[in-house]
This record gives sequence, structure tokens and C-alpha cells, in this order.
Amino acid sequence: MSNTLGNKLRVTIFGQSHSPMIGTVIEGLPAGFAPDMEAVQSFMARRAPGASALSTSRKEADIPNIVSGLNERGETCGAPLCALIENANTRSQDYDALRDVPRPGHADFTAWAQTAGHNDIRGGGQFSGRLTAPLCFAGALALQLLEARGVRVRARVRSIAGIGDAPMDFARPDLDAISNGGLPCVDADAAGRMGEAILAAKADGDSVGGVVECFATGLPAGLGDGMFGGVENRVAQALFGIPAVKGVEFGAGFEAANMRGSQHNDAFRMDGQRVVTETNFAGGALGGITTGMPLVVRAAFKPTPSIARAQRSVSLSQGENAELTVQGRHDPCVVPRAVPVVEAAVALTLLDMMMELLEMKNDG
Amino acid sequence: MSNTLGNKLRVTIFGQSHSPMIGTVIEGLPAGFAPDMEAVQSFMARRAPGASALSTSRKEADIPNIVSGLNERGETCGAPLCALIENANTRSQDYDALRDVPRPGHADFTAWAQTAGHNDIRGGGQFSGRLTAPLCFAGALALQLLEARGVRVRARVRSIAGIGDAPMDFARPDLDAISNGGLPCVDADAAGRMGEAILAAKADGDSVGGVVECFATGLPAGLGDGMFGGVENRVAQALFGIPAVKGVEFGAGFEAANMRGSQHNDAFRMDGQRVVTETNFAGGALGGITTGMPLVVRAAFKPTPSIARAQRSVSLSQGENAELTVQGRHDPCVVPRAVPVVEAAVALTLLDMMMELLEMKNDG
Amino acid sequence: MSNTLGNKLRVTIFGQSHSPMIGTVIEGLPAGFAPDMEAVQSFMARRAPGASALSTSRKEADIPNIVSGLNERGETCGAPLCALIENANTRSQDYDALRDVPRPGHADFTAWAQTAGHNDIRGGGQFSGRLTAPLCFAGALALQLLEARGVRVRARVRSIAGIGDAPMDFARPDLDAISNGGLPCVDADAAGRMGEAILAAKADGDSVGGVVECFATGLPAGLGDGMFGGVENRVAQALFGIPAVKGVEFGAGFEAANMRGSQHNDAFRMDGQRVVTETNFAGGALGGITTGMPLVVRAAFKPTPSIARAQRSVSLSQGENAELTVQGRHDPCVVPRAVPVVEAAVALTLLDMMMELLEMKNDG
Amino acid sequence: MSNTLGNKLRVTIFGQSHSPMIGTVIEGLPAGFAPDMEAVQSFMARRAPGASALSTSRKEADIPNIVSGLNERGETCGAPLCALIENANTRSQDYDALRDVPRPGHADFTAWAQTAGHNDIRGGGQFSGRLTAPLCFAGALALQLLEARGVRVRARVRSIAGIGDAPMDFARPDLDAISNGGLPCVDADAAGRMGEAILAAKADGDSVGGVVECFATGLPAGLGDGMFGGVENRVAQALFGIPAVKGVEFGAGFEAANMRGSQHNDAFRMDGQRVVTETNFAGGALGGITTGMPLVVRAAFKPTPSIARAQRSVSLSQGENAELTVQGRHDPCVVPRAVPVVEAAVALTLLDMMMELLEMKNDG
Repeated sequence: MSNTLGNKLRVTIFGQSHSPMIGTVIEGLPAGFAPDMEAVQSFMARRAPGASALSTSRKEADIPNIVSGLNERGETCGAPLCALIENANTRSQDYDALRDVPRPGHADFTAWAQTAGHNDIRGGGQFSGRLTAPLCFAGALALQLLEARGVRVRARVRSIAGIGDAPMDFARPDLDAISNGGLPCVDADAAGRMGEAILAAKADGDSVGGVVECFATGLPAGLGDGMFGGVENRVAQALFGIPAVKGVEFGAGFEAANMRGSQHNDAFRMDGQRVVTETNFAGGALGGITTGMPLVVRAAFKPTPSIARAQRSVSLSQGENAELTVQGRHDPCVVPRAVPVVEAAVALTLLDMMMELLEMKNDG
Repeated sequence: MSNTLGNKLRVTIFGQSHSPMIGTVIEGLPAGFAPDMEAVQSFMARRAPGASALSTSRKEADIPNIVSGLNERGETCGAPLCALIENANTRSQDYDALRDVPRPGHADFTAWAQTAGHNDIRGGGQFSGRLTAPLCFAGALALQLLEARGVRVRARVRSIAGIGDAPMDFARPDLDAISNGGLPCVDADAAGRMGEAILAAKADGDSVGGVVECFATGLPAGLGDGMFGGVENRVAQALFGIPAVKGVEFGAGFEAANMRGSQHNDAFRMDGQRVVTETNFAGGALGGITTGMPLVVRAAFKPTPSIARAQRSVSLSQGENAELTVQGRHDPCVVPRAVPVVEAAVALTLLDMMMELLEMKNDG
Repeated sequence: MSNTLGNKLRVTIFGQSHSPMIGTVIEGLPAGFAPDMEAVQSFMARRAPGASALSTSRKEADIPNIVSGLNERGETCGAPLCALIENANTRSQDYDALRDVPRPGHADFTAWAQTAGHNDIRGGGQFSGRLTAPLCFAGALALQLLEARGVRVRARVRSIAGIGDAPMDFARPDLDAISNGGLPCVDADAAGRMGEAILAAKADGDSVGGVVECFATGLPAGLGDGMFGGVENRVAQALFGIPAVKGVEFGAGFEAANMRGSQHNDAFRMDGQRVVTETNFAGGALGGITTGMPLVVRAAFKPTPSIARAQRSVSLSQGENAELTVQGRHDPCVVPRAVPVVEAAVALTLLDMMMELLEMKNDG
Repeated sequence: MSNTLGNKLRVTIFGQSHSPMIGTVIEGLPAGFAPDMEAVQSFMARRAPGASALSTSRKEADIPNIVSGLNERGETCGAPLCALIENANTRSQDYDALRDVPRPGHADFTAWAQTAGHNDIRGGGQFSGRLTAPLCFAGALALQLLEARGVRVRARVRSIAGIGDAPMDFARPDLDAISNGGLPCVDADAAGRMGEAILAAKADGDSVGGVVECFATGLPAGLGDGMFGGVENRVAQALFGIPAVKGVEFGAGFEAANMRGSQHNDAFRMDGQRVVTETNFAGGALGGITTGMPLVVRAAFKPTPSIARAQRSVSLSQGENAELTVQGRHDPCVVPRAVPVVEAAVALTLLDMMMELLEMKNDG
């Protein structure tokens, strides 16, 4: 709970948008793991802003500095690993006006209510999307550990502004069909129209939302821990930690509510020695336990609340209605940059669950 | 995690569909609370099966027996409260055939994979919807404690088989408009058509799913605990503990992904001394912290996996494909009975969060 | 924390001395384990009262009734195991006088302070030694699982009323030298004098305390999880959960404070392929991690607070000084019955830690 | 558990003796608290090495750098507070020889066993006393918050090398009698002899241990959370996280085992409107719940394992016996520097428990 995710693998995220640093402490990493820092950087670059006209102009070097947890050979040593990222490029004066007049759709008001006004308003404080950078760092390590165990986690933009990418086969998804350049979609045409929708919103001083869909293949069957510790409970808990997520669904998800059992039930079949399902409407989980089929999860992102238009708000100090026009640099759509963040959250949760697979789990 | 929900208020659920008993242990209840057992029974009756043609014919008395946690005056005494429910009406022989051939859409296969075949197959074991009875017991206590603090939690059937109830105002929902008889909807006509759809599926040896929508009014602003302990993270974690839930969304939810920021942002306004929002697309949470507006959450339920039709499966012992026809008593749709279960899960989570409101939370 | 012990193996204890039932819910037991119930009963009999003149005359059948967690073959099935014990032989009227005038040395006053007077005063409520019965049940299961993995846990009375049993070799303790009849000591003469001291205190309407020493042999080296999750932290947390424990020490313990490093340091030596230590002043733990040598831990028990003599107390309702003479049945010394309770607490903690030994703990 | 301490106030410690940095992340601090950094520095200086001939010659500036958790006014803002300390003065080459031949009494061997040799051997890695610096930083904040709430925490050297300081009154301790200069004792003569014993051990290439006694006054009655979450369980769990602690006892502690109930029971008396006890053998806790009397706890520290003498060990690579002579700078006695560390661990635990005091704890 709180700013810490996981049981065996515990990731704590700290920092605010404009504090000197942000970072993460990761407990429980297996010892002897030498992170591939180039792969980490390349993963984090997918989240970094400033890459294109589609995102905020704030530039961040975001080079994580590992200050603990490695031995002199650069391997994890059993101690908590701490990585730091400096907040170099901050323009705190942009936010002075917001202390009294909270931005609609932002956490300004709720943070004020929670802390009796002591919250850090600069750049959205601890509620900033900036905090997903250390989450991505941690996720990048998890992805490497998962890959070495045959598990692959890959997400794509499922839709932006109502424009959908092509459907993928939940049972046997072709993850390599997801584009590595531009928007990560399988349908380049749809991707193009999404980009146009983002730019159109930007031109209007407005913003758009979208859906990220994530797949994890190669999972063993049998991961999950009880009624409230199942794979869906834990992946959802992680995903709702990403700013702007308003919905999480697995497999057929909300569409399952409109299906009949005879359609939705995934028939079991033998595939050699392995039990598989023909379809995968379940999204890889039954009873909160992995089936061994791909985990399929979608997260809905609301449109960026920071828009250039004048909005109705209140003055907290005066207790009266007020107008607000937000200054500062903001993404017209967080979805493209959220794709690796979703991968990170899913990877961290799955690795945590795999670390609970015990030698002595079964007896006799 | 696991079978335990909550931090300050910790609810542990135990039992299997055909074990001698099911029950719950609740730690952290405020002392001096005398539960209204008639209200508990009446709440639990809403979940009980056998009430109508729309649900399974299995009848359960489900009278919870409190065996610890009360003093001699019937008040909570600071010790964990344990309540037991007997599993009287079980027909375990119905399930013998399933041990080898797992039911599609059920946890039979995943439980087998997790426990190397030691799982309790009878009646679905610990994965049975039967386990929601003790959850409802615990929720009934939470609802009483919340009501005494001005918080009301009420859910309805939002849709069944694609047939939707009328929309409700997220900002100022009229909870009294939800029917107390028949299906809990605001539109009696829609409710009628939902009932017909359930019976039609039943007649076809099939099943249907649906969506439950839950409101919580009277919450203070400021509830939430960090990135992974926010109100959405925790409500979602609880709701995915209910069997058959495949998606959870707040406020506008997945529809938010199709909106522009200028539409989705809820404008702040003063309502006397109180800050409110004009709309409530956020569903009562910003940055994982309650806004003080109604919490609005929806859970998607898949169609009941147990259907009377022949289905394709495998023989786990033989490692070959097999056919399966499920025997036993089953709901053609779990959604009507799931309504109080959703209320229970939401109430327990919110009470837990309210118990974290501290005298010394803020300093200075 | 709270009434729950453990991470992977989670044991929750519930009940009060005079509630209808006491019991435990155990989550995380390996599946496929068929408990030997005769061994459970025989272990619990060591804690049961009424066995001799040395303990209270309250008799308890204490037959635990397992109501969940087993499949139809009597094996653990992956679901939480709940066991219940009825509180049949209660004489609640004995405690009526105590509600206003708290017993010195008891939790009557602190429970009153914590619950604003709503605590269950009957028989000491949740603070009664009676709650160690379900702890012993859970411990009995843990002991069986540990034994099957080569780990043996055995405690003895180290001293009563200042009369000490003979020292044992911490590095290679002869656990079979501990008596199975009468007081569990290695020196029958000392045991005899301890028994006399107990009876002398009883004759005086008084009580005595003592020390229990527990050994665990066969542990692997390497168990422990960080600064606050080491074996000493966790064993101590468990042992302080036993009523009347006021001190916990490992190996040389407090005596280590009087030693020099050259005496206290245990020299490493090879024993075939295995690293051992010559002595074991460390008590089996260095840096919070098991060495593979026997874990040696002692718990100090205060004298039973319930004594027959008149004592000075206060009237909580009147806010004035008062006299108190305690009625009821009480042990003049809890130490003999505490021996299996210490074994149970140690066994549960060690099994929990062994369950964290992961296939994928180390990488590369 | 693990490297994290606390429930509401969660302190995570990270770093190794020779990693680039060590530090702490503190979650759950009340918002609006402006730490007095001068007081923090002055508290940490009590732990810092190099102050006198009694401790190691390693000098550490140990100026903690707060990189998150404060708003622009220097107040806590509700976000996790991270503080970093650089490891500037390291001489890693001192430790090269230890990788193969573990030091007796150190965690070298157990860390090797736990991590399959991937542990960070430099300076003792994560098991170094150096990690108590960030613990002291966190504790310094807790002490300020406690003091503002009327709670004072103060420890002293109770004994070193078997030389005892004068007894103090557990019920009404005069904390101001503890010396602020030299060894923190109440008996200057005893302190002098302790210092001599340390120097004598140093001259012999040896080391000595001792006992730290800690008092907390001004606590409310009623703090504690169940069987395994009581004040003794939690303080003990924290104290065993300090390197070299081998025993923890409360009030009369192990001596209670030699007392009769009539001696040990603390009589209740009225002190104006307040219930107090005449004596305080219980050390401020009954049933795991604070009595409102001073908490009294002692921690036994073993003699520093690093001594200059030749010792018997093994070669892990060769699997044969070996001799070892330890190089490097080491304290001949850790007890003087451990005094503020004990205060820090106790303060953090007590503040955590005070933060659980709820507005809605009791009902009706």
C-alpha cells in the first residue's frame, strides 16, 4: 500500500515533480543480477518527454544513478537498491498561482484537503506523472529478470480519442507486430489518425485520453494468492497507481458483461503436454490465478487535466468561485508515454508473484 | 493481500463451498459497537440464493454465528470478531466428475495447477461465490459504522446482458430511486427486460453477465494513502476479490478515454462553505484521494461459467481433450446477488480508509 | 502485526477467554499436507491445564475442530485453514468484580484505557493465556512440516523461581536429554526443586516466574530478510505475543554484554563439506541471518499476576484508591505450560521464513 | 519487515557501508512539520564516529541531504521524505581478504550463504553499523514530533564490560541526571571505569559489550495493537534491527523471572485524576498495551566482532580451515554510539503507534 508496491519484491517510489530528486528503493531483488543499464536507458527513453510534438516540451535527461544495492562487480547484492534521478529542469514559478485555485481534474484540491494546505503544489508535487520515471526504472529491471525466465511483457496504444488500433488475438498475440517507432500500435493507419487527434486537441488548447493494452506471455499457470491477492487484484492495484488511470479490465473486460457464458468460456485443449485455451476471453486469469495463457489487461487513461482553456474553479483562501487559466508545459495526451509505464507496473507485479513460487509450496 | 483485506480494519475470509463452515475474522473494529443483527440479516438476505427464479435453487439459512469479539453486553470489545456460517446444504457428489475435467471459465484448472491437484474441487472450493456470504457479513457491519458517520453506500444493477438501467447523476445521485424490490434498478422497465434476458439464457442452458454500479455519498475529502494506496487502488483490489469480476472503473471510467479534457474536467464550485464539483466524471477521486463528491465505481461481471451445455475441456489425468457437461445448481446470472457483495467490498475499503484519518495527521 | 503473525504463513488468532469459541485461521500452508491429528492433540496436551497440582484446576478438552482448509481427503487444499476450540468450562461470574478494579500486573487497566471500557473483562478477555491454545494448534502443524524438512524445535524450562536447569551445549544440544515427563528439564533434581518452589508459592497465595529456552536444529544457513525482518526480529516479535513474556535473548544473550569479543566470537570450522562454528554464543544468527547452527532463544516469563493476596488498586469508576482480592482459578506459575507455546511461536516463525526460500532467490 | 519499519510511519533504510550513498525513505510523516535540522545534526553527532579514543577513527561528515518530501517552505508535504548520506571516507581495499575467509561473529558467512556469494563484502556491506546513521536521521525527526506531543525518549549506557551504571527509578526516572558529556550515565564514577574497560580491551586488540537502557515518558495509556502488534513486540522488532543486539527486555525483564507475583505486580494508585503505578516492574506495558507509565527497555549488545587478534575461520572457496587477522578501523565497543540509535528505534516505533490512535477508535 502507500508508495510501496509488492510483497517479496517491494518497490518504494519517492519524490515530487520539483523536489531535488525523485527515485526508488527496490527491496527483494534476487542477488547476483547485473542490470543491463543500456537496456534500462532505452526502456526509460520510451517514457521520456520531449521526444516529439505529441508530448510536453519539458526535457529530462532522467539518467538514474544507482547509489546502493550493487556489489563491486555491479551485481545485486541482497541489499535494497536505490536509484536517484535529479529534477534538473524545473520551472516552479509556473505553479505559484495554483496554490489557491486548484486545477480541475488535478490532485491540487484533494492534496490540499489531505494535508491542510501543506502539499507541494509545484509541478503537481507527488501526483505528477514525473513519478512514473522511477517506476519505469524499477520496471526495466523487472523486465530483464522476467525475460530471463521466459516472460515477455509488451503494451500498445489500444485507442486514443476513440480511435482504436486493430484487435489482437488474446490467445496468441503477435507482440512483434506492435510498432517500435511512432505510436506503438499494430495498425499504422490508426496510429496516424491518433496522432492527428492529439495535435488537433493541442491546437484547441485541449487534451485527449486513451486506452493502453498490455500482454504478458510465457507465464506459468498457478500464480496468485487468495481472494484479495490474485493476479487481477494486484495488477489493478499497481495500475491505478499510474496517474490518470480510471479503469482496469482483463481479457474481454467490460465487454464480458454483454456476453453469454457459452461465448465467454474459454475451452480447454491440450497443446502437446500443455493445457491451453482456444480463446482467451479470461485474459489469462481464472479465480485470480494465472492460466498460463497470456495475461491481457487494459487501462483507461483520462484526458490530461491541464488544458490551456479557462476553467471554473474556486479560491480556497477566499472560499469563493474563481476562474483559472493553467500555465506551464503539458502533454495533450499522456497515453503514448504511458505505454512503458503500464509495462513497468505489470512487470513488477508479475515478477513479485513469480518470486512467491516456492520450492516448498506443495507438500507430498 | 491474500484472503485478508484492509490495513486498520482487516477482514480475513475463510472456507470452501463444501467445508463444514465458512466465515470471517475481522480485526480493528472500533470498540463499543453493538451490531444491529437484524440489519445484518436483512442485508445478507439480499445476497442469499433461492429467492427467485432468477437465481440458483440452493437454499442457505446463512445465519452468521458470532463466536468472538463481543463483550457480555454484545458490544465489540477490541478483540478480533469471528463469525461462522455453516455449510448445511451441500451436495458434494455433484462435483465428482470435475476433478479430472476442469470446467471452462472456472478456477478448477488454475487451482489444480497451483496446488498440484490438492485443491478442494467440491462446489468450486474456495473460489465459490459462497465465500461472498462472510464478506457480506463483514460488509454489513461496515455499512452500519459508515452510516453512523454519515456515509451511505448503495449499488444497483447497471446492466445485464447488454440491457442498461437509466443513467444516474454522478454528482448528486438519487440513491432512493434504486428499487428495493426485484432487480435493484432505477428504471423498472429496464429491470423487467433484464429479468427476461436472464430467464431466456436459463432456458437455453446458458448464462449472462452484467455490470454493478456503486455509489458512496457523504465521504470526507482527503482519504487516500499514496501512489499505490489510493482509494481507486484499494477499492479495485477489493472488488477483484469478488468472483467473476473482470473490470473495474471509476466515474466516467473507460468512457473517459474518449473524452476531451475540457469535457472531463469537473469544475470546482463553492456550495456554501464546501468545495464541490459541478459534474463528477472523476467518480469522487483525484490523485487517488477522495474529493468529497460521491465515489462512483462500476464492476463488470462475466457470465456464470457453469452452463448446462456440453463444453470442450481436457482430462488432466489423461492429458487429452475431453467433453464436459456440468451438473449442479447454478445461477444463470450472478449480477443481482452481486449487488450487496459490491456494497460490502466498497464499504469495508472505505471504512478502513476512514479509520486512517488521524488526529495527528497534520502538524502545525 | 496485530493478531496476525507471519508473511507467507499467516496465523491469525481470535477469541477471548469466555467468548463462545477461540480459534485460528492459517493462510499459506503448503497444499497436500495431511495433518497428523493425534500428534496435534498430544502436542496441545502439553499446554493443557489441569494436568497436575502445578497448574490451574480449570479443565479444557481443547479439541480443535478444523472447519475449513482441507479437501475431502483431509489434505490442505490451498485455502485458509480455520480451527475452532469451544470455551465450555467458563465461570464468568468470577470476574464481575474486576470490571471496576483492575488487577495489578494484568491487562485489565490497559484494555480499559484502549477501549474506553468496552473490553471483555471475563477471564482476562483476549489477553488470557487461553489464547495460546490456538497458537499451539497452529504451531503443532508447523512442527510437523518442519520435521519433514529436517528441522526440530524443542524447548525446556531453563529456570523457575531462580532455580536453574543445567546448561546445555548451544552448538550441539542433546534435545533428547530433555525430560518428557514432569517438568521438561535435563536435570531431574533441579526440576524437583522447581516444582517445590511452585507449590511453596501457591501455598503462600503467591506466584513465581521463570525462563524457557528453545532450540531449533537442522535449519539451513541463510534465512532472514533484511534489517527488521531478520530471524531475531521475527522470533522476538512472535515470543512477545505470548502473555507474560518480558524479555527475549539469543545465544549468550544479555551475558554477551559482559564478554569480550575474543570469547564471544564463534570460530568457523569445516565439518566435512559444511561450515559450522565451534561454539554458538551467537545462538544461530549473525546479521539477522541463520548460520545453520542451532537457533537458541530464551524468553523470560514474569510471575503470574493473579495471586490470592490482597493488592492495592484503584476504582476506575470512582477515581479513587481501592483494595482488591482476586478470585478464580490461576496457575501459580505459567512456565511449565508455556514450554510448548514457545515451541509453537518459534516453529511458526521459522516455517514462515523457510517458505521464503525461493527457487529464484539468486540469479546467475 | 525487511528493511522497512512501521505501519503508519514507514521507514525504509538502504545502502551499504561502501556503496555511494546510504539513506532512508520515510512515509507517513504528518504534513506541515518543519524539521529542526540543527537538532537533527546534533542528535546524529552523538552517533558519529571519530569523536574520541573510545571509538573508530573513521570520520564521517554524515550530513543528511533531504531530496524529497518537503514543500518549498521546508515543511513535510505528505510525500515520502528521502534523505541521503554520502559514503565519502571508504577504504574498500581493507576488506578484500575477507571475501573468502569470513570474520567470526560477523555476517560475512551468513550473507554469503544467503546470496550465493553475491553479497557486498566491503565494510560489512548492508550489515555495517554505518546503516544506523540513516536510522538516527529518521529517529531524530520522530523525536521532534514526539516531544511536541509531550513524549520524551532518552537512553543511557546501563553497563559496559559488566560495569553497571547506578539503577534508576523505573516509575519516575530522572532523565536529566543522565550525563550529556562523555558516556551517558548517571554515575560519573561508573562511567569512568567503563571508559577504562574499553581502552583496556582496545589495548589487548579485543572488544567489549554492554547494555543500553531506554526510557520513554509522557506516553498515553492504551497504545498497542493485538497479540503480535503490542508495544513490546514492535519495540523488540525494531531493536533487533540494530547490529549487535542479542537481547531485549522490558521493565524488570529477565529479573522478573526470579520474582514473586506479590513483588512484581505494580500496584495501581490514583495520582490526581490519573491512574499510575507505584512501581514499574512492568516497564510501562501490560498485555502489550502502554500503561502510561514510562516505557523501560534494555538492549544487550555483544562485543564488537572485529578484533585485532588472529581467529579461526574457514576458506569458503577451498572448503578448509583457515586463520584470519582482521584489518581495518573498528570500535572496541559499540555501546556508547549505540545509545542514540536505541533512542531512534524506540522513538520511531512509539511515534508509529501514536499515529494509530484514532478519532474513531471507540464507538458509542
